[in-house]
Amino acid sequence: MTPEMIEAAAVRMAGHIRRTPFLNAPLLDQAVGRRVFVKAECLQVTGSFKARGGWSAVSALDPEARARGVIAYSSGNHAQGVAYAAARHDAPCVILMPSDAPQVKIANTRAYGAEVVLYDRATQDRDAIGARLADDRGLRLIKPYDDPQVIAGQGTVGLELAEQAVEAGITQAPVFVCCGGGGLSSGIALALEARAPGLQVRTAEPHGFDDMARSLASGQRQKNPATTGSICDAILTPSPGELTLPILTRLARPGAVVTDDQALHAMALAFTHLRIVLEPGGAVALAAALFGEDLPDTVIAVATGGNVDPATFATALDRFAGC
Amino acid sequence: MTPEMIEAAAVRMAGHIRRTPFLNAPLLDQAVGRRVFVKAECLQVTGSFKARGGWSAVSALDPEARARGVIAYSSGNHAQGVAYAAARHDAPCVILMPSDAPQVKIANTRAYGAEVVLYDRATQDRDAIGARLADDRGLRLIKPYDDPQVIAGQGTVGLELAEQAVEAGITQAPVFVCCGGGGLSSGIALALEARAPGLQVRTAEPHGFDDMARSLASGQRQKNPATTGSICDAILTPSPGELTLPILTRLARPGAVVTDDQALHAMALAFTHLRIVLEPGGAVALAAALFGEDLPDTVIAVATGGNVDPATFATALDRFAGC
Repeated sequence: MTPEMIEAAAVRMAGHIRRTPFLNAPLLDQAVGRRVFVKAECLQVTGSFKARGGWSAVSALDPEARARGVIAYSSGNHAQGVAYAAARHDAPCVILMPSDAPQVKIANTRAYGAEVVLYDRATQDRDAIGARLADDRGLRLIKPYDDPQVIAGQGTVGLELAEQAVEAGITQAPVFVCCGGGGLSSGIALALEARAPGLQVRTAEPHGFDDMARSLASGQRQKNPATTGSICDAILTPSPGELTLPILTRLARPGAVVTDDQALHAMALAFTHLRIVLEPGGAVALAAALFGEDLPDTVIAVATGGNVDPATFATALDRFAGC
Repeated sequence: MTPEMIEAAAVRMAGHIRRTPFLNAPLLDQAVGRRVFVKAECLQVTGSFKARGGWSAVSALDPEARARGVIAYSSGNHAQGVAYAAARHDAPCVILMPSDAPQVKIANTRAYGAEVVLYDRATQDRDAIGARLADDRGLRLIKPYDDPQVIAGQGTVGLELAEQAVEAGITQAPVFVCCGGGGLSSGIALALEARAPGLQVRTAEPHGFDDMARSLASGQRQKNPATTGSICDAILTPSPGELTLPILTRLARPGAVVTDDQALHAMALAFTHLRIVLEPGGAVALAAALFGEDLPDTVIAVATGGNVDPATFATALDRFAGC
């Protein structure tokens, strides 16, 4: 992984992936007692940063591989990002999803142009089905984070951040990043090392799913005890990626951990003060920036996604708007 | 009013007023059967385009007038826009608000740094109180739309739109703009005439408060029969401005009218597909772009504000998310 790979991904994305805004709000800053800047990747096309990694990976394929197509395993933001990128490249795209995934996610993935193949979580082996489909059709598997071109694509967030922070007069600040497998965090860390070394990544994870924070602290790859049980579904991964952990071990500061309630509270404050829609997993970095202790006067958070069901959003407003 | 005044306002704003993003969403386009682009002024600092007009007016004052201060009558977005601009210019600022205005609006206006003076709607004459305050302290009144520098400030939305439309390959499209007194609509119309004449403003108003549409159709300045009775509170004005109507008569196409339910529906679709928060009055242009008939393949809407109370937003989601 080199900064040049990130820069090359940015060139391939131009005109297709949105440069997302860098937001702040005077009244939010007053309320929390520090300056909080938000990189609003919820406003990315497909509603999350995953469109960047998908675009980077699909566009990096040679024309023959692209013509055969791609496959991904996901019921969420990675599925939509890969499906969008493949459709715009006229590349066939199969997304393997559990048959009990929410209907709206299946419908959305199809609407982006992908062929959705369903499997039964209880009786079927996802990896075996995927491997057979990939073999039969010559599809290239696009992993959600342990893929250099995916990391390079997510890292373009860091290139933009470096420029936007300078424009805002910020040279030193922690950059909280919502973290599942670490693809976005590691990509941003590499970009900032090259372009804005005073900005330093801190991963943000939900309580009970802090495998990255514990891995960074211990120097050993740690697993989460559970795979479900947080509303932050977008970022519940079993353990850090093999490619991402070494990058973050070298470049990231200690990981932050927030509660589900703090994520909901951050969603409500983002609604009131920034007028953006965040999903719980997309709000954990903002929660860390808002509610963390011993933070400097200026902090940055990457708000990674906004694909949230209305009921969850209404719960966040009901419980925390006005708090 | 000249295009040069708008360009000068843009220069004065640089670094203080946000260049808001130009958003679209593949799944929204599929759902409505046309390409819908949204200029997201809800992401402007203070949550609406009104910060532009406030900044333009305050920054255009000579230093002596600015040191004496400014005054505005508003309980909403104009109050916050003027208060923000005045505070950043170290100019004293009085906002005259009815004493029954929502506490949160009073608190927010104070938090932006303004002195809020309350009056009793039933027994006191707002204009008389404002005139006395202005006389006593030498304050300059900043009107919400019938002020050339306010129109010039709002017109900077049009300068950005012209550039962003070209980047998106759009040369011909209607541009729906949420319309109260017409300051934003007329400013945008002037900017587009100079920079992108294929983009043509169409005002959008709530049903029952379509004074601008009727004025444009009749060639005579029309009044609304009522002053309250729509949830689109931000844009309920009694009649078009004296400065704005002639500009729009010359440059705008027929005005669009939407129902309150269509505004709520547009809010829900903006939540789902664009991940932005709109207030009802800030969603009428998007509603016109989504639900209007006989529209071309590509339409643009200016989403003007996102200062909405959680209960109203939850109602929009409850009734229309998933529709």
